[in-house]
Amino acid sequence: MEAKLKELKKRLTEVYDLQCAASLLYWDQSTYMPSGGATARGRQTALVEQLAHEKLTDPAVGRLLEELQSYGESLPYDSDDAAILRIARKNYERATKVPSDFMAAMSNHFADTYQVWTQARPANDFSMVEPYLEKTLEYSRRFADYFEYDHIADPLIDYYAEEGLKTETIRALFTDLREQLVPLVKQVTERKPLDDACLRRHFPEQQQWDFGVKVIKQLGYDFQRGRQDKTHHPFMTKFSLGDVRITTRFKENDLGEGLFSTIHEAGHAMYEQGIRMELEGTPLAGGTSSGVHESQSRLWENIVGRSRGFWQHFYPQLQETFPQQLKNVDLDTFYRAINRIEPSLIRTSADELTYNLHVMIRFDLELAMLEGKLAIKDLPEAWRERYKSDLGVFDSGDQDGVLQDVHWHFGPIGGMFQGYTLGNILSAQYYEAALKAHPEIPDQTRQGEFSTLHRWLRENIYQHGAKYGALELTERATGSSLTIDPYMRYLKTKFGELYSL
Amino acid sequence: MEAKLKELKKRLTEVYDLQCAASLLYWDQSTYMPSGGATARGRQTALVEQLAHEKLTDPAVGRLLEELQSYGESLPYDSDDAAILRIARKNYERATKVPSDFMAAMSNHFADTYQVWTQARPANDFSMVEPYLEKTLEYSRRFADYFEYDHIADPLIDYYAEEGLKTETIRALFTDLREQLVPLVKQVTERKPLDDACLRRHFPEQQQWDFGVKVIKQLGYDFQRGRQDKTHHPFMTKFSLGDVRITTRFKENDLGEGLFSTIHEAGHAMYEQGIRMELEGTPLAGGTSSGVHESQSRLWENIVGRSRGFWQHFYPQLQETFPQQLKNVDLDTFYRAINRIEPSLIRTSADELTYNLHVMIRFDLELAMLEGKLAIKDLPEAWRERYKSDLGVFDSGDQDGVLQDVHWHFGPIGGMFQGYTLGNILSAQYYEAALKAHPEIPDQTRQGEFSTLHRWLRENIYQHGAKYGALELTERATGSSLTIDPYMRYLKTKFGELYSL
Repeated sequence: MEAKLKELKKRLTEVYDLQCAASLLYWDQSTYMPSGGATARGRQTALVEQLAHEKLTDPAVGRLLEELQSYGESLPYDSDDAAILRIARKNYERATKVPSDFMAAMSNHFADTYQVWTQARPANDFSMVEPYLEKTLEYSRRFADYFEYDHIADPLIDYYAEEGLKTETIRALFTDLREQLVPLVKQVTERKPLDDACLRRHFPEQQQWDFGVKVIKQLGYDFQRGRQDKTHHPFMTKFSLGDVRITTRFKENDLGEGLFSTIHEAGHAMYEQGIRMELEGTPLAGGTSSGVHESQSRLWENIVGRSRGFWQHFYPQLQETFPQQLKNVDLDTFYRAINRIEPSLIRTSADELTYNLHVMIRFDLELAMLEGKLAIKDLPEAWRERYKSDLGVFDSGDQDGVLQDVHWHFGPIGGMFQGYTLGNILSAQYYEAALKAHPEIPDQTRQGEFSTLHRWLRENIYQHGAKYGALELTERATGSSLTIDPYMRYLKTKFGELYSL
Repeated sequence: MEAKLKELKKRLTEVYDLQCAASLLYWDQSTYMPSGGATARGRQTALVEQLAHEKLTDPAVGRLLEELQSYGESLPYDSDDAAILRIARKNYERATKVPSDFMAAMSNHFADTYQVWTQARPANDFSMVEPYLEKTLEYSRRFADYFEYDHIADPLIDYYAEEGLKTETIRALFTDLREQLVPLVKQVTERKPLDDACLRRHFPEQQQWDFGVKVIKQLGYDFQRGRQDKTHHPFMTKFSLGDVRITTRFKENDLGEGLFSTIHEAGHAMYEQGIRMELEGTPLAGGTSSGVHESQSRLWENIVGRSRGFWQHFYPQLQETFPQQLKNVDLDTFYRAINRIEPSLIRTSADELTYNLHVMIRFDLELAMLEGKLAIKDLPEAWRERYKSDLGVFDSGDQDGVLQDVHWHFGPIGGMFQGYTLGNILSAQYYEAALKAHPEIPDQTRQGEFSTLHRWLRENIYQHGAKYGALELTERATGSSLTIDPYMRYLKTKFGELYSL
């Protein structure tokens, strides 16, 4: 059995290494590649991804998993090998259930849709993508039908976000959240808006870069096992547990943009850097779900990075970095500026509070489409209606309405959005548990000391990689099941104080 | 037949794309990778290279080549498809003749040897590598024996440098060259040495970088289809014909180091950038041999870049860039400094004239070892003897003697060195032919205008990629077979004038 396990692991490491190689091809394309390299690069990335898929779905892998199944079940549940066999089997089944020619046809359709969308959005013309989205919806349903499910969105959520969460669980959670969030946003927007003019002065890029690097080093991002580069759309990527990189971007007339993007990506990266090195090259060597991943970017960006205590430590240094721009801005003014709430049309630039409303609108519309309750032709109007009722703003056209996100125009309908809000919910649940174990964390934050919090996260979340699913991991880390209560407590306290509610 | 040719080309493009992906993994390792990424990167590069090798040696490729052979022979010799079939067949046969487990064992041995060499060189201890080199010699001979040959070095030269040149041809050429070169070097070194103190002042790196970029842009290196980054050991690499990159390094107390390294690598890159785009993804989309490749780096670095005319144009700009350092240095002093000749121990820092003596020593010793006329244990002494007789200098130890180059400690004995001197010989032969066609080239050089020379090289050398072998390409481009005469004319004229011989 040990020889077979070794053989299986060798094959799984090859899958992992090819996925990492594909990630490097993409990283280079987004950071340094000259424009002349584009055509070949698309071909090369597709080839390496295809080879990774072929290696994963090799019938020899299926046979090894079969032969090792009872051995795996005989091992202690918590052992690495038991978990590797569990997760490898899940990945194999997921990858082999859908015929590869169906996957290829669907990928080609997504690529075609994307091309049309890049034209349709600037033209403010939903009718251009309408027939494509109808086909996308059909593909999404057919994809789901290769699996067993309670709700048709379940396989999409499982495949594309690896939540291990059921649609109905998320829907119930989001319904509760929305019921509490919509009135809170309403309360806030009835108050006088906070002023963020101090962030809109001129902040030279190099100083922003240097300050951001200082901050994320102090949070615990390890530059010996990572690096930061510039790109158009910031992301985190990993080439091994010893090489977890982030990218960022800056606006010289918006101090928040680069700073919080840097912290956000560093949060993702610290999760991956914190995975036990023993798991390197196995299917456990990665974050366990998009929601848990997002919980880490959001915890560091928002709960820590937009807190008053954090800036009690860092603001004097920021003022030193930008003496001209910030000398007449006191800490309280700055703190209010970075926490300004304002309902707006665009998800990606939304504030901490209203962001979730954007996400939940998309999630609900996805479900309605998959359930056959909403036709593609009625989508723009349904979008507008929800923006009116939830956020009080809407685009009379579609450019900044239903056409704003790339997701449905480059992937399936279903599974694409829920992770963003699950991440927010989980960030507060984890932070509250860390605080319960270490009540000194807020004091340490005020002193620029983050190792206790970082250690708690590493021990309870990061180190396990993908060993436990989102729900199980949350239970283990917090002693409670997934709940919105800590998140609502956090929001009500923070914004209650900021807006004198 | 056309469907079969299409299928073959598709497979060959996959080989090409995987080789390019492996090159990117290596480029990143040498430029940006954090130290934590090293272990996984070695594994990843080896895997992608192995997959490229498996794709090339797939029996289906062999069958397609078989079925297409007479079709290929029926096509006009000069057609792309005929050449693709010829070269693909050669590559396939070369890759399949050596069993893959032998290749793997040899690669592992090279990796082990390299590790020992990294210890042995600083310890100045040849005895550490001696048993490894004995095994390397055995591997090199066994490798050759998988092929038919006239001289045992032929298969090594063909495989590792793709010269298509016979050992005896090179030996005859080198014997002639050495007979003329040794007395010339002797004459030069009897004169008063040229003074290069003006290059040893402090030259800040960023200005060196900017000046170098300006120069290579003007020579014709296309930054839309390439880029330059910093590394320890400069190299050129290619991820497609639209993405041909170079790396460089600088010493702030040696102006020549970075400047000529930049031009050298740009010379390699302009060759690859000049290949016809129609050949992209085929086995023709690369330089035809290491010697021809080196001819292009050397032509631009030495024949152009160390000429008086070149600096008549660029020196005033260099003085503007470094006003403090160069204000009292006139053009003639600078020109002499960059052409200082001095026999020395280390090949990589040797001057234009003595460099070839270093190379020919290694080539002759390689042949003697392969022929069984020189035992590994006698190598250090043989090395010293040749340095004494050819260069008049020698290392009493081995650190800067036989241990100085990585080549034999990371690859076979045989085929590793001749390309450097063949490149020098060819650079002069090509330049003379270009001059014959366009006598206005030296005038244009003095005006900083390089398009006529660049165009001649592109039309006669670059565009063909690997369509013609080194000898055939040289015949076509110059109307004459490979000869040292232009090179000796060039050296005698240039250094005769510089040293008043």
